[in-house]
Amino acid sequence: MHPVLEAIYHVRCDARSIEERARAIAIEQSVEMPVAAIADEFVRSQIVGRVSAIEEKASELFEVRIALASETVGNDPGQLINMLFGNSSLHPDVALHDVELPGELAATFAGPRHGLHALRRRVGAPVRALTCSALKPQGLSPAKLAELARRLAQGGIDYIKDDHGLADQAYSPFAARVEAIAAALRGVAQPGGHAARYVPSLSGDLDAMRRQIEVARGAGIDAVMAAPVIAGLANFHRLVREHPDLAFFAHPTMAGAAIAPPLMFGKLFRMLGADAVIFPNHGGRFGYTAETCRRLASTALREWHGLRPCVPVPAGGMTRDRVTEMLDFYGVDIMLLIGGALLEAGAQLVEATAAFVAEVHGYRQEISP
Amino acid sequence: MHPVLEAIYHVRCDARSIEERARAIAIEQSVEMPVAAIADEFVRSQIVGRVSAIEEKASELFEVRIALASETVGNDPGQLINMLFGNSSLHPDVALHDVELPGELAATFAGPRHGLHALRRRVGAPVRALTCSALKPQGLSPAKLAELARRLAQGGIDYIKDDHGLADQAYSPFAARVEAIAAALRGVAQPGGHAARYVPSLSGDLDAMRRQIEVARGAGIDAVMAAPVIAGLANFHRLVREHPDLAFFAHPTMAGAAIAPPLMFGKLFRMLGADAVIFPNHGGRFGYTAETCRRLASTALREWHGLRPCVPVPAGGMTRDRVTEMLDFYGVDIMLLIGGALLEAGAQLVEATAAFVAEVHGYRQEISP
Repeated sequence: MHPVLEAIYHVRCDARSIEERARAIAIEQSVEMPVAAIADEFVRSQIVGRVSAIEEKASELFEVRIALASETVGNDPGQLINMLFGNSSLHPDVALHDVELPGELAATFAGPRHGLHALRRRVGAPVRALTCSALKPQGLSPAKLAELARRLAQGGIDYIKDDHGLADQAYSPFAARVEAIAAALRGVAQPGGHAARYVPSLSGDLDAMRRQIEVARGAGIDAVMAAPVIAGLANFHRLVREHPDLAFFAHPTMAGAAIAPPLMFGKLFRMLGADAVIFPNHGGRFGYTAETCRRLASTALREWHGLRPCVPVPAGGMTRDRVTEMLDFYGVDIMLLIGGALLEAGAQLVEATAAFVAEVHGYRQEISP
Repeated sequence: MHPVLEAIYHVRCDARSIEERARAIAIEQSVEMPVAAIADEFVRSQIVGRVSAIEEKASELFEVRIALASETVGNDPGQLINMLFGNSSLHPDVALHDVELPGELAATFAGPRHGLHALRRRVGAPVRALTCSALKPQGLSPAKLAELARRLAQGGIDYIKDDHGLADQAYSPFAARVEAIAAALRGVAQPGGHAARYVPSLSGDLDAMRRQIEVARGAGIDAVMAAPVIAGLANFHRLVREHPDLAFFAHPTMAGAAIAPPLMFGKLFRMLGADAVIFPNHGGRFGYTAETCRRLASTALREWHGLRPCVPVPAGGMTRDRVTEMLDFYGVDIMLLIGGALLEAGAQLVEATAAFVAEVHGYRQEISP
């Protein structure tokens, strides 16, 4: 087999059945028919998936490695996920744990167009952790959301993203919201001269997202958020290609629980062009473990086929009292996102934001002697 | 709250925690912040999700009903799934079991443009079950796939779909494949004068799928297959709207195991315009139960907000010896899809197909006295 993808599955299965089960997955994810009925030599030697390893990880839990031909992907992100997990996603006892991809495929998709260093430069923060908050709840008018954004900016925050529930609803249409918020932020002078960056959330079909990008661009915005799973991976990647000047934040909504987060966010979203990946931090509203979060962040940042580092954005119920702990845990190549816990400050939103920002700016990692 | 969606979740949780857990899901799927911190009256009364019922289904398994405002959807299929399951999809212990939708939303999306009766008329089969097979394996050249299609048509099959692994790969580009197969089918005279219909599989981003549709249309094709989850639900629906003359087959790839199949295929795909939904039949390569399949098929077909009935297409390892059993089980408002088990016939593919077709044509449901 020529260049291959190696897909790594975790399969719950009894020990007597795992070999047959692994072969069944290899066939399901490639030719999807009995191999004995395939006469074509190219298909038999190059296209049929192959089980390359089976390892018992725990009782009735096996890691299965399957080699798939890179040619089957046809350089399409949608077909990539189809090959890696498509029909096998329907099995509740199979998870997609990791993928080894050939460098040519990573080079084709090219990864973040900006990444960690550019997102830092944009807000004049060359070394420290970045700060972020979220505009919510959905249902507020553009004017009220703009007022929240203004106060977050007055508190000195770097990035202000839409909640992912803010779409193009009648009570807060995308265009009216973006224009109101961008205008509010232009009115806030920040120390150091770097304005807070607003990151509106795109929604709808590919054309709707393109129109939203034009609205955002018209308002002077240089970063947007999208939900790659809902948009479709190929459409997310198309937007990245078409708008190389914009930074893309990827939201995890609808990513499910069957694809390992370090793979989904740290490898796939990054490879398709996410400059920052938002994910649920351990100890918040979601069940990710500390180990999963650590692997996710290090996967997104580490050297991998020459792609730019993608900023991990742990979120999901974070609070100010966790800032030091999170920076100790992740280091400073990170963006900390506190949403609801800042908004809870109500009339003291500016002060609460300023305190969060001060804590991040003042943080110095203890260096082991 | 005005018109609402009622989302119905199955939550694995101990009995002491379920009330708190249900409230947390209602908040996660709506405002995503502490309700106490929300001052806006419209948001508090109309947008915050509400737990309407909790019912214990089994030990540590609860059915939770949550009312969400219909306005939050903004008539966008992507935002609909975001509201119903977005962040909650990240929890391994929460499944989306069902949804009650207001008729206005169903009317907005409008469902199948053709559906069961039109797919029957196209092949001159006003009352019997329809027949289908699949072109595979991926890796074959357009000429070899066209030869398979020719022989399936000679056997008298109604519909011939691409395997969902056939995308736009170098060894079988979409345009070359579609033209070769359409030409092969034009050469087959069928009894009754109704030619077998080829259903090519679309892939790539929205624009790529549009280009593929134009190629297919140019070859005289009137039905296509798409994978709504991979394409993104909004993009799938966009294609349906833009091409009302085409019939759409929906493929289940990447649909996962956390959204109940009767909901995903029988309600959501149907509402967004799928004329036929392919799904794994019980007793094949996948783990769906007979009860799940029965509910899926009846949901896709039944009267629901005035939408046309969508054809259930049970598949996934079906064989000729199951034809009578499947027709007894589903009735004849169905399309039977046998792929690999026909291709296994090799040189006898025409004969095997003809035998499958004869069995379906000859089937008479026993009427209970």
